[in-house]
Amino acid sequence: MNQTITAPRGFKAAGAHVGIKKNKEDLTLILCEKEATVAGCFTRNVVKAAPVIYDQAILNGRNTVRGIVINSGNANACTGRQGYANTVAMARTFAELTGCSTDEILVCSTGVIGQQLPIDIVIDGIKQVFPTLNDDEQAGKNACLGIMTTDTIEKYAYEEITLSGKTVKLAGICKGSGMIHPNMATMLSFVTTDVNISSELLRKALSESVSDTYNMVSVDRDTSTNDSAVVLASGLAENKLIDSENEEYFAFLAALNKVNKKLAMYIARDGEGATKLIEVTVSGADTDYNARKIAKAVVSSNLFKAAMFGADANWGRALCAMGYSGASFDPSKVRLEFSSKRGHITVYDTQPIVFDENEASEIISERKICVTISLDSSMSAGKDSGGFSAVAWGCDLTYDYVRINGDYRS
Amino acid sequence: MNQTITAPRGFKAAGAHVGIKKNKEDLTLILCEKEATVAGCFTRNVVKAAPVIYDQAILNGRNTVRGIVINSGNANACTGRQGYANTVAMARTFAELTGCSTDEILVCSTGVIGQQLPIDIVIDGIKQVFPTLNDDEQAGKNACLGIMTTDTIEKYAYEEITLSGKTVKLAGICKGSGMIHPNMATMLSFVTTDVNISSELLRKALSESVSDTYNMVSVDRDTSTNDSAVVLASGLAENKLIDSENEEYFAFLAALNKVNKKLAMYIARDGEGATKLIEVTVSGADTDYNARKIAKAVVSSNLFKAAMFGADANWGRALCAMGYSGASFDPSKVRLEFSSKRGHITVYDTQPIVFDENEASEIISERKICVTISLDSSMSAGKDSGGFSAVAWGCDLTYDYVRINGDYRS
Repeated sequence: MNQTITAPRGFKAAGAHVGIKKNKEDLTLILCEKEATVAGCFTRNVVKAAPVIYDQAILNGRNTVRGIVINSGNANACTGRQGYANTVAMARTFAELTGCSTDEILVCSTGVIGQQLPIDIVIDGIKQVFPTLNDDEQAGKNACLGIMTTDTIEKYAYEEITLSGKTVKLAGICKGSGMIHPNMATMLSFVTTDVNISSELLRKALSESVSDTYNMVSVDRDTSTNDSAVVLASGLAENKLIDSENEEYFAFLAALNKVNKKLAMYIARDGEGATKLIEVTVSGADTDYNARKIAKAVVSSNLFKAAMFGADANWGRALCAMGYSGASFDPSKVRLEFSSKRGHITVYDTQPIVFDENEASEIISERKICVTISLDSSMSAGKDSGGFSAVAWGCDLTYDYVRINGDYRS
Repeated sequence: MNQTITAPRGFKAAGAHVGIKKNKEDLTLILCEKEATVAGCFTRNVVKAAPVIYDQAILNGRNTVRGIVINSGNANACTGRQGYANTVAMARTFAELTGCSTDEILVCSTGVIGQQLPIDIVIDGIKQVFPTLNDDEQAGKNACLGIMTTDTIEKYAYEEITLSGKTVKLAGICKGSGMIHPNMATMLSFVTTDVNISSELLRKALSESVSDTYNMVSVDRDTSTNDSAVVLASGLAENKLIDSENEEYFAFLAALNKVNKKLAMYIARDGEGATKLIEVTVSGADTDYNARKIAKAVVSSNLFKAAMFGADANWGRALCAMGYSGASFDPSKVRLEFSSKRGHITVYDTQPIVFDENEASEIISERKICVTISLDSSMSAGKDSGGFSAVAWGCDLTYDYVRINGDYRS
């Protein structure tokens, strides 16, 4: 069964190598047969890539688009007027082939910063790839390949729900790896769905979902110039229009969260050079903001990430990161546990406790490590179980991270 | 000529191996023959080591102390009541040997977090080392060794100035390496001086100096639980008491800045695994705060640090880090240059410019790299030369950083 971004009704996609990179796929097109309701979240970096500036301007003016053209291999960031003109040229080329207006096409770019796009190659590429647009599974897979940079695995997710008796499909692709840090977003993420939803509610759903998923991922604390998350909704599932925060809205939001969470975890797991996925859960915080702050600080700490790489249960570095997170808490109420499929171990419980270092190291040797931090350890002892919680995802810091990023452009 | 911390009149020091670490020096004593005026700056981490809590309490209550006892190999952090009792026991032991009250002794610790000190060994150690206190050069050197952890070089600095016809000496030692990030402070830093200065002005001078020196250093963004910078002033230079912000105050501040800046640069250069010192200078900012924010963001970026390791003039990563620093600026007014003793190259000037990659790589292959960022490139063209500037220091991100921190405790 097709579970790619061409599965939701109304969408075609394509991906191919056109010559921006030496060998690999570097161009992706996504097209909706009708005007698709659209929502986008973009990087908060002051230095925004040309396509981010362009897309934000489009989405300020309209609620629907027809398609997205994405290139990898070049971020079109810090490229001035020429860069912006190149973004517009990409949109115009795709729009002319489609027979729509230029402002019905979004543009995304990812790759090296500060070099002008080989725009003739890109425009010729769009023209070559356009005829291959298709709604089959292979087209969806090609689209996923076309957006990758240093990614080592293809990242896609699929969900199906029933709303007012109709099957609604959601499918997503994303690219991650370096320069991922919790701020707005992520890397590039594209979700197609055939849900019938108002523009306002689609925007609300994306915004809520991003804050619990992509914004809770950290690979290296660097928020990129290009981070973008876009959802297109064709409406062709013909469910009753979602135009208020009713049960169906929440069912759709839950499905969108599942897709985005799966993609976010892929990004963390596939962080540049990563060997481990690290999931940090914080509970018992006095505010949602503090729960997030603490979870992100731990998952972002270079020292803690290096300890995870070395399978060292160095909980002191976690506590230290919690301490400089900016959130307030009482260290003498904290409990900290490590777990993986090999088992579970408590390493700090209101104070240092004696634990079996070898057992802890074995638990941390797994590919997925869970770090569970309770800020008020008395709570789980059956007392008031109040407080806010948050989950953040990251990866270990490895030799390969240094190798990949010490030699990225050559 | 003795240029160690025993050079300023009135100070003795000692350092030795007492058994906290396996082989290396792990205990340092600093003693003033009279009550020394004292100032201290401490970590802003919520999780404060026991000696930090203790020292802050002491300095809230009094303006003078007699000495400092420092151990390396164990941070005495996250160690609860027992940890605090151990800190007090260290102070009491040194105080009894000296014949002063316990609250006239400060305590600092550095090393692994979350393990109780082998307090019997530490107390016996203080007793063994006390008789070796001496005002000669060797004693000053031993004191420098006793505070080191993963440091690969000894870090000391010395300055001499003349105030009201008297020679005033300042000497400092510090330890750095991992867990250094611009927040309050540094690692551990101790400056002895024989200047005659009021407590209020000494505190003001230290606070000002720390913000321009230790607070502008980043090794890995992790602010430690133990960061402490302490200055002791014996007053024995017999210069006219500095008790207002007069010329002599600023002369002393300048000398203190020189000492602390040299120590701060040592810390950056000796960052765990570092092969290069990186100095980032930002000018033309609209506020002092924004200048600092931008300089720190660039020098702290993992991606930029890895590029420096790879001698890759990847200025896009610097611009990206500037963008997420939280400071506002106009990318189309920025100029960015790299320089080292091999030469100088402009790589971005309001937009990407064509430059010789090989030449840039050669410049970045040096041991000290300067990154010069002008936020308003029109300024240096002879127009208004206003704006705020800041300098931050850091190091490259290397394989060895990962090796050292992936295997710290074993």
